[in-house]
Amino acid sequence: MPPAADDLAPTNPLADPLLADLYEFTMAYAWWKNGTAGRAAVADLHFRRNPFGGEFTVFAGLAEVVRFLSSYRFSAPHIERLRALLPAGTDPRFFDWLGSSSLERVRVRALREGRLAFPRVPLLIVEGPVAQVQLLETALLTLVNYPTLVATAAARLRLAAGPDRRLLEFGLRRAPGVDGGISASRYAYIGGFDATSDVKAADLFPSLPVAGTHAHAFVQSYLNLGEVDLSDFVAADGRPFDLKEAALTYRAQLDALHTHDGELAAFLAYAAAYPGAFLALVDTYDTVKSGLPNFLAVALALCQAGYMPLGIRLDSGDLAYLSRQARAAFEAVSARFSVPFAHLTIVASNDVDEATLLALNAQGHQVDTFGIGTRLVMPGESLGGVYKLMEVDGQPRIKVTGDSAKISIPGRKNAYRLYVGGGGGAPPVPVVDLMTLADEEPPEPGRPVLCRHPFDETKRVLVTPRLVENLYSVVWDGAARREAIRPLEQVRADVLEQLAHFRQDHLRAVNPTPYKVSVSARLYDFLHDLLASEVPIAEIR
Amino acid sequence: MPPAADDLAPTNPLADPLLADLYEFTMAYAWWKNGTAGRAAVADLHFRRNPFGGEFTVFAGLAEVVRFLSSYRFSAPHIERLRALLPAGTDPRFFDWLGSSSLERVRVRALREGRLAFPRVPLLIVEGPVAQVQLLETALLTLVNYPTLVATAAARLRLAAGPDRRLLEFGLRRAPGVDGGISASRYAYIGGFDATSDVKAADLFPSLPVAGTHAHAFVQSYLNLGEVDLSDFVAADGRPFDLKEAALTYRAQLDALHTHDGELAAFLAYAAAYPGAFLALVDTYDTVKSGLPNFLAVALALCQAGYMPLGIRLDSGDLAYLSRQARAAFEAVSARFSVPFAHLTIVASNDVDEATLLALNAQGHQVDTFGIGTRLVMPGESLGGVYKLMEVDGQPRIKVTGDSAKISIPGRKNAYRLYVGGGGGAPPVPVVDLMTLADEEPPEPGRPVLCRHPFDETKRVLVTPRLVENLYSVVWDGAARREAIRPLEQVRADVLEQLAHFRQDHLRAVNPTPYKVSVSARLYDFLHDLLASEVPIAEIR
Repeated sequence: MPPAADDLAPTNPLADPLLADLYEFTMAYAWWKNGTAGRAAVADLHFRRNPFGGEFTVFAGLAEVVRFLSSYRFSAPHIERLRALLPAGTDPRFFDWLGSSSLERVRVRALREGRLAFPRVPLLIVEGPVAQVQLLETALLTLVNYPTLVATAAARLRLAAGPDRRLLEFGLRRAPGVDGGISASRYAYIGGFDATSDVKAADLFPSLPVAGTHAHAFVQSYLNLGEVDLSDFVAADGRPFDLKEAALTYRAQLDALHTHDGELAAFLAYAAAYPGAFLALVDTYDTVKSGLPNFLAVALALCQAGYMPLGIRLDSGDLAYLSRQARAAFEAVSARFSVPFAHLTIVASNDVDEATLLALNAQGHQVDTFGIGTRLVMPGESLGGVYKLMEVDGQPRIKVTGDSAKISIPGRKNAYRLYVGGGGGAPPVPVVDLMTLADEEPPEPGRPVLCRHPFDETKRVLVTPRLVENLYSVVWDGAARREAIRPLEQVRADVLEQLAHFRQDHLRAVNPTPYKVSVSARLYDFLHDLLASEVPIAEIR
Repeated sequence: MPPAADDLAPTNPLADPLLADLYEFTMAYAWWKNGTAGRAAVADLHFRRNPFGGEFTVFAGLAEVVRFLSSYRFSAPHIERLRALLPAGTDPRFFDWLGSSSLERVRVRALREGRLAFPRVPLLIVEGPVAQVQLLETALLTLVNYPTLVATAAARLRLAAGPDRRLLEFGLRRAPGVDGGISASRYAYIGGFDATSDVKAADLFPSLPVAGTHAHAFVQSYLNLGEVDLSDFVAADGRPFDLKEAALTYRAQLDALHTHDGELAAFLAYAAAYPGAFLALVDTYDTVKSGLPNFLAVALALCQAGYMPLGIRLDSGDLAYLSRQARAAFEAVSARFSVPFAHLTIVASNDVDEATLLALNAQGHQVDTFGIGTRLVMPGESLGGVYKLMEVDGQPRIKVTGDSAKISIPGRKNAYRLYVGGGGGAPPVPVVDLMTLADEEPPEPGRPVLCRHPFDETKRVLVTPRLVENLYSVVWDGAARREAIRPLEQVRADVLEQLAHFRQDHLRAVNPTPYKVSVSARLYDFLHDLLASEVPIAEIR
């Protein structure tokens, strides 16, 4: 059953407070035992590198984060399981404390779901008692990492396909498990896809369009024309119509001598079932010699019966070549039989990914719609989202490492997206994400603000923004802020709008330009003073 | 709540009959409309290529397949959703038929969960009315592909680490969604891991061991020794013991001048909480200069109080070098302070994968336990499991393609694993998986049987098996065969036993030898006669 619209339960009922690594609980215990579980802490969830060799990321997963927080409470069975799982010797009073704990004193700020995001700029900022903040780590990462990865992959595919192609998500069968598939469908849509083949995802998210026709198995299930009985088929105007006879006549006229009879039978059976939605998979035997002429024979017969066919799907072979062949055949038949077939839909699937799309573009393909599965739902890499303690009791925390790319920006922060230009009908363009300390005044439109690279002292830029976007809003403060759960189609529109308005050199597939992520002058000094005091001076004797 | 032991519900309640691609339903409709939905069909679920460049695969996911089949029924809300999702014009009587349909006449044979599997040899064989067989396609693939991929990745990591290292699965935070993480934990264990950090997985599968201690955040949460109050700490014999004072004394004796006080405070707090299970993460500031001496100071103090410390975890840097440094320090302290620290545990994590393990082996590392996350739960590729129609109404079906690797072996089949050798206490060794037509007599121990490569006519071998394993057993025949749901630890033991007894050249990481997959003489002829009749002769004019 889909959750009711006013229900704040997580989509997957397995998302409960036990969705955590064991060490969250052992740490919480040690803090509790030491009397410090209630110290005020701030943690950031951020990532260090954009996925797919790109220079942008699409933030997704926030709605489920808010649902998870809303349903977060330890039930008696949870506590019983934890008693069994924590190391022997754990003080039993800890479980009483845990059972009565809540997220009442926790506050979460977040980027809006669907906003483009960049390395180091927090996606979520969690504030509250250190034990509660820490207990959320793994669940929040799990709820953000994969959705964000899939939404980003989808947005990249959307950019590669161009705005006018339809993109269908076909990945359920290769997806990482049941809700991996459901997540993939949902977040592919957010990232700019048009529909999914996944019925369960469409069940859970009623605004998600669903698509699909038939597989090779349907074609293979017929061996000859005798297997298909179309005696009750009627034309669009209700009169009986011999679809098989008409199709055989057209097939003869098309001089299609080598088509497979079983395939023709399958197309007839499918056309008779869905005369207004006939789309045929044409590559079971031989696309050019059999599938395409069989499709055209049935399509012409349907047309004669007053129905407009939809088109074909290609699932193997050279998609550029075959789609051009198909388009040429559609145009030839249009002209010869005076039917409006020139713009019939050509769907292509079969291991399509970003590189395939870019190659097909270069080869002048004629595909209208791409079905994309595996490479979207199992993208071959993961988003390395991390959750780092930034402050305890007002004191900043930093983890020092030799690699400055891995150093998180410490402290309790705000972040702003600064836009310049615009005017003359064009919207302002985002040029930098600026992090500041939480107690700094926000930048203002029209006033120059110094933006510094967090680690390269020579990289400084004075930006006079035309528009300032405060990146965070509160999504949880002891209760859910329902406005954080945006409808899927609204998040999707936001993504597409940003893909259109960000500078294209940040978004392009090859050698993209990094988008600027900066810190304020005060945050720069704060960071470097902290590094100087925390990193011991090495000695050579 | 975990499902009761005698409950056959799927672990994830989202796995229901809507877990399907839309085209399963549109195909079912077209068959129903054409009066052929009840034709007898056989479909195989198999894969074409072993993952990870290897020559073996570990089959997993069967228990959830059986649970899914057991709970498969269309509820009234399911039917209502389908009415809304199927194309307009779908005959309403179809939904009545679907609502009253069941898997009563479906029969599923399967490989046992945990058996090694090879390309082309079916993992599942599904027989029944064509519409029902087809409606299961996507769900079965989803329930098998990712579990099998993770179990295979885990088995490869087990082989790379060797039998004596402990392997912990730490991947939940990078996992593809909530039940992606839960699946990964479960199937990593099946594939040979020892434990997981994932509490929710341990909640659902009580036999799954769970492990974990603390993160950098715990260390960072303390800045100085004043923050830790150990006044109620008692020694193993119950007497009050000043753990902090003892640790400071040892730290001075260790001549550790540059250790971080906050880190020492954190170790003391953690040790006081779990004096019998003290394992410290030592790389927050500087492993050699700070983490290791701070650990040793606290470990010596604990030891003086009558508790035995467990060891350390390394999460960055050169794991081979640092583990050798740590082991040397343990040995030196053992000798100097007469404590049994030489064999303290060294846990290593941080992007460990198969290549890292092999490299560490070559460098003489001193790691006892590896924590592995990302590369196990998001393995960077997918298992290309497919589900293909093999027979309808007793007639074989084949999808012809130019690439013989993609041709499925048609027909209703059996398969056997043939073992040779053994004796003298050694068990027989599997040498070939042989597929036969379903009506052939099974091979018998001691009788030579001709095994043919399915496509290379010159590759033939006469095998006289010592042992014949019938690969399939019925797991569903209108009702679940409960014995198909094997306990996790039994499946795991089966995997480890096979990894020990298969020829090691099939299993090795570099240039493994393909395991032989053959067809019987009759199946060979059947396949090639079918290919000759189905593939049209091309013409050049």
